[in-house]
Amino acid sequence: MTAKSHLQWTAEALDILRVGSGFRLADVDPESAPGYSGDKARGEADLAAGVDELDEYQERLYAASRSEVTDSSVLLVLQAMDTAGKGGIIRHVVGSVDPQGVMLTAFKKPTKEELSHDFLWRVEKRVPQPGFIGVFDRSHYEDVLIGRVRSLAPADEIERRYGAINDFEKRLADAGTRVVKIMLYISPDEQKARLAERLERPDKYWKYNPGDIDERKLWPEYMKAYQVVLERTSTEYAPWHVVPANRKWYARLAVQALLLETLEAIDPQWPAATFDVEAEKARLAAT
Amino acid sequence: MTAKSHLQWTAEALDILRVGSGFRLADVDPESAPGYSGDKARGEADLAAGVDELDEYQERLYAASRSEVTDSSVLLVLQAMDTAGKGGIIRHVVGSVDPQGVMLTAFKKPTKEELSHDFLWRVEKRVPQPGFIGVFDRSHYEDVLIGRVRSLAPADEIERRYGAINDFEKRLADAGTRVVKIMLYISPDEQKARLAERLERPDKYWKYNPGDIDERKLWPEYMKAYQVVLERTSTEYAPWHVVPANRKWYARLAVQALLLETLEAIDPQWPAATFDVEAEKARLAAT
Repeated sequence: MTAKSHLQWTAEALDILRVGSGFRLADVDPESAPGYSGDKARGEADLAAGVDELDEYQERLYAASRSEVTDSSVLLVLQAMDTAGKGGIIRHVVGSVDPQGVMLTAFKKPTKEELSHDFLWRVEKRVPQPGFIGVFDRSHYEDVLIGRVRSLAPADEIERRYGAINDFEKRLADAGTRVVKIMLYISPDEQKARLAERLERPDKYWKYNPGDIDERKLWPEYMKAYQVVLERTSTEYAPWHVVPANRKWYARLAVQALLLETLEAIDPQWPAATFDVEAEKARLAAT
Repeated sequence: MTAKSHLQWTAEALDILRVGSGFRLADVDPESAPGYSGDKARGEADLAAGVDELDEYQERLYAASRSEVTDSSVLLVLQAMDTAGKGGIIRHVVGSVDPQGVMLTAFKKPTKEELSHDFLWRVEKRVPQPGFIGVFDRSHYEDVLIGRVRSLAPADEIERRYGAINDFEKRLADAGTRVVKIMLYISPDEQKARLAERLERPDKYWKYNPGDIDERKLWPEYMKAYQVVLERTSTEYAPWHVVPANRKWYARLAVQALLLETLEAIDPQWPAATFDVEAEKARLAAT
């Protein structure tokens, strides 16, 4: 990358964090900062510097789509165990983008109506339009994560879903959506410290749910389910990226870099005027 | 207000900008900065200072709603002539808020399906949930603005709508939604300068539409339609505020102040724990 804010990156985040064949989640160190040579202070400065770049790319993407010269869009899929920092990513990375170009969806426990449909039904409705950056806070992957760990569907149905997800994402990619899938990866000890903090601070109580401990006890089962997800659904057209997230500053910077590199690859251009500029100047002058 | 960023305000923005009985739009100076004694540099500094306050209020509002101790929400309705700065307000004021607590809707020309329903049908679906700040970029007021100016509906139907709007907004207010209606008010000369800029800069072409000139020619008719809207729909429970907007820095600061004062009036509190904190600490320690 040539972008100013990325001089400390030794490689493209899209490459170095990508889940390829033979990937093992257990080999990733949640404390690490792959591809980035700077320290925390430098990382925070680079995050701030990236905001303007992201801002211009997003506006170009939006502008290009308004004039129908592109049907490109971006879909950022965020998955993680509780406390891994999805909220902070949305606040500090997604939140730095003009909200007029962002379509954010937080997928909660499915409603009765949602459960009566195929698991992709509610997801399909939230796919970003051309020009938009869609963000999924949790996603259809819950249906093969908690779905698998908690046996919320029969085993053969869970099995079917991996293929259905790949077909779905292939269709999105063919229609011009860059699907950027990110797992934020923390250690169980880090989660323990973050949950403990929520129990120490009255302004954090609302983020705590006793059910979080029940899920925490299933950590090994969740890691197995993630490993299967990464093996079965990291495709050419919609690869997964695992972002070590024990260090919040690195996770935020890495997600911003993944977004920046994705937009750089799209390389959206300001569209040409669809009207006669001189004629319009004359019309305006006459008013 | 006691908030630090508001020392330069000589009065509550909610009071000084409010449309009361006898209000005449023609008496407002779009160049003015009512209630604010600072200059542009000070205004920009105050806008930046207000970001953290807005951030905390929004998070408290969201947190309170998650624990069901409040059903409060805010609905910001933005109306204006083209180029008046709605986009800049959304980018710089709304955009400073955590996107997880914002529900933004840009209302475009109605689709066939929307037109087949009552004019409030599409609006109703975008009312904010408890804890959210809803933002309408244009709104149901288009149906009595362009609707009236362009005779898009029979006169008696337009007439009916003012009452229907008041009933609708009363229902929202009764359900806990603070409806903050804002008209950004620019002069025709200022619009001319801003349209001219769009025609000078290739990175602004995409924002220009030849139809903007056609609307511009109907300026007096639009001002009459706004005057009627302000007279008929500035109610106790959902008052209008007219924000002079020739100076962008003032308009942004004033909208931020209107939001801050609204949230201050709600005064959302961090909710108490809905679980036994010590018991949860013990459960966590055992994992």
